[in-house]
Amino acid sequence: MSEAPYGHVKALVFDVFGTVVDWRGSIIREIRATGKTNGVDGDWEAFADRWRAGYHDGMNAFRSGEAEWKTADQMYRERLDLLLGEYGISGFSEQETDHLNKAWHRLDPWADAVEGLTMLKSKFVIGTLSNGNVGLLVNMAKYGGLPWDCVLAGELAGSYKPDPKVYLMVSELLGIEPHEVMMTAAHNHDLIAAKKTGLSTAFVSRPDEYGVSARKPDLVAATEADVSATDFVDLAVQLVV
Amino acid sequence: MSEAPYGHVKALVFDVFGTVVDWRGSIIREIRATGKTNGVDGDWEAFADRWRAGYHDGMNAFRSGEAEWKTADQMYRERLDLLLGEYGISGFSEQETDHLNKAWHRLDPWADAVEGLTMLKSKFVIGTLSNGNVGLLVNMAKYGGLPWDCVLAGELAGSYKPDPKVYLMVSELLGIEPHEVMMTAAHNHDLIAAKKTGLSTAFVSRPDEYGVSARKPDLVAATEADVSATDFVDLAVQLVV
Repeated sequence: MSEAPYGHVKALVFDVFGTVVDWRGSIIREIRATGKTNGVDGDWEAFADRWRAGYHDGMNAFRSGEAEWKTADQMYRERLDLLLGEYGISGFSEQETDHLNKAWHRLDPWADAVEGLTMLKSKFVIGTLSNGNVGLLVNMAKYGGLPWDCVLAGELAGSYKPDPKVYLMVSELLGIEPHEVMMTAAHNHDLIAAKKTGLSTAFVSRPDEYGVSARKPDLVAATEADVSATDFVDLAVQLVV
Repeated sequence: MSEAPYGHVKALVFDVFGTVVDWRGSIIREIRATGKTNGVDGDWEAFADRWRAGYHDGMNAFRSGEAEWKTADQMYRERLDLLLGEYGISGFSEQETDHLNKAWHRLDPWADAVEGLTMLKSKFVIGTLSNGNVGLLVNMAKYGGLPWDCVLAGELAGSYKPDPKVYLMVSELLGIEPHEVMMTAAHNHDLIAAKKTGLSTAFVSRPDEYGVSARKPDLVAATEADVSATDFVDLAVQLVV
């Protein structure tokens, strides 16, 4: 690949849930183990999907002006409390419930993530750009060995992607131009919004994000993506010239 | 050492200029080399100290309400433009002046810094807490191999230390209690202010920060310091039980 089209890129920022880590597989494993310990059986795949939906519902409530800005930790906790009741899992101490809620801090990276990020780090500033909160992202990085140069999040702009100010915050904080930042995600809607603010964009396919659930992953990059890669190592091979 | 007194600490955040990196030695070397290249001789130690003073003057102007908040990059650049004129160094392109100003992104870590931070990282979240801007700190970390888990800065709170909100931002972002954060600095004034907000504190002596200039380093920890160490490896030996 010619260096020219992306030679101006200085920093790559990554969507995290689904793009860097396998949130669904990790959450299913943790909640299934919790159910087993507590002698409760249930549809843990549906539990994981509904828990995740609590996060999207929380962000939508903020976007529509119905609710205050909340951290991912708060949104996940509100939904967890509902789900635990519904599934008949009870008797947890506050400490145990908090630990379970922080399953979202212990998500496994996709198999290629650490290797690809390490390769990319040799040439670029690499960071998160997630709607997850900073503490969650920092703990997740330590858990999974993700070698970020910086942990950036919608929290630092008091908003969530796809609010343009979240994307533009990256170039402002790093002291570079928007097109020198490459937003990397497995979700085309994230890349389309980033592109509108002037960022460069990279699509990485994550066909297994939603497992066997009804939700379908983006398998093909939108035209707004400057680069398309099959995983992070492929991305690094394309960009680290 | 008994683990008890500091067993609650989960994250260490570090003052950077002087505590982690030898700003004065690094700046003197860079500006002396620049002078030589341009056939100009001068008192480069005084140049470095006056350049550094531009940063303190800039922060004081904000604190007193005389000026807007500015990044360290902006404050250093304003003073640099004055000093270059005064020292008779002229004819730089904008790109060359910007490169020289970013000497503050290329400061050498003290000899023990990377080793000590790497040891501390095995047990704690480690991050910056500097009045330098995020971009400067990220570039400095890549330059010097500083293994931060997160890059935090007064910039993210729109203020400078010792404003209490800068210290309290750390526990808020990391989702922990103030006393679970240990502020680490070679400057007692920083630790005294951190302690007032409820943070734990560690003093690390940096006797060579100011070189042969008139300014004297703190050689002994204030009583507000919970821990006192001779360098980062000593700090790690004390804290990583």
